[in-house]
Amino acid sequence: MNTQAVLDFILTLDGLKAVERRTVPSGMSRRENSAEHSWHGAMCALLLADECAFAVDVKHAALLFLMHDVPEIGCGDTFIYAPEREDAAQREAAALELLLATLPGHTVKNLRELWQEFTANQTPEARYANALDRLMPLLHNLSHDGLGWREHGVRLEQILERTVQLGEVLPKIWAILRPRIENHFSGA
Amino acid sequence: MNTQAVLDFILTLDGLKAVERRTVPSGMSRRENSAEHSWHGAMCALLLADECAFAVDVKHAALLFLMHDVPEIGCGDTFIYAPEREDAAQREAAALELLLATLPGHTVKNLRELWQEFTANQTPEARYANALDRLMPLLHNLSHDGLGWREHGVRLEQILERTVQLGEVLPKIWAILRPRIENHFSGA
Repeated sequence: MNTQAVLDFILTLDGLKAVERRTVPSGMSRRENSAEHSWHGAMCALLLADECAFAVDVKHAALLFLMHDVPEIGCGDTFIYAPEREDAAQREAAALELLLATLPGHTVKNLRELWQEFTANQTPEARYANALDRLMPLLHNLSHDGLGWREHGVRLEQILERTVQLGEVLPKIWAILRPRIENHFSGA
Repeated sequence: MNTQAVLDFILTLDGLKAVERRTVPSGMSRRENSAEHSWHGAMCALLLADECAFAVDVKHAALLFLMHDVPEIGCGDTFIYAPEREDAAQREAAALELLLATLPGHTVKNLRELWQEFTANQTPEARYANALDRLMPLLHNLSHDGLGWREHGVRLEQILERTVQLGEVLPKIWAILRPRIENHFSGA
């Protein structure tokens, strides 16, 4: 029955609260999970539209962020600097279909399209949401003196490679953060 | 400087990840925090629009849910069955103003209006979002055989008093859940 399937799926979503990321929220000593990260990113979508280099539908960008990590319930988080990152989207697409399998067709379509739009990273809202997804670990790492970078041996060049889009989408913020990140790695 | 104030506020929002609720997510053994709850509720807004007794703007309802607990960063969560619940809105309004104090004026206005709309509980989206806020602990408690109700000595009448709006807004879901809740309390 459709209503029961949706209620079951709501409890399935609890699984994202158990998916651990590599970053530690500021002022905390435990790692972040992907559910609270998804809330945080959607709030950032509300907060940073003025800083975006192009016009965006803030509400739609927030929805993309809410949905972007849901497949991790099935396949876990892939660290952005891990080699497995290359085929993460394929594994996530498969995991998503399994998670959505019992839901009504129009709900599946709606959720799948949100995830696909974020992952394709082509629309203004998807480019904005992806830039936010890059921004947040930078803020967390800077707030903990590079804790996550040190723990995982991340190098400055890796960060700069992965933040090209952040610089294009949120240029003013990148202009503030880039020197701080460079200072961290130069030991200044 | 405005951009720096927004970046600081993004880290302030991390505080919601440290606010503990009384409920335990399904399949987990720790309590939920208000940040992951806010993500979950916004997802429910996407999922349950078909079940709502009236038409709602799903994206707007999701935003209301994203913002509704932010004042707890300043004043903590108030258990729905606690006597302090009576003046929670006043404490939260004051806490919110302190949190927002350094942000640009239009951002303050936007965030404050979202919180006020949720709390006033008058618009269709606010009524829907408030009903979801009641629904979620019921689902969690049922998934843990009433764990939160047992721990806090909650009685059936208290639940029924607090779920009148849930029954009005999501009648089909309430028709499914009410007998399960009554069965729990009758020991069936």
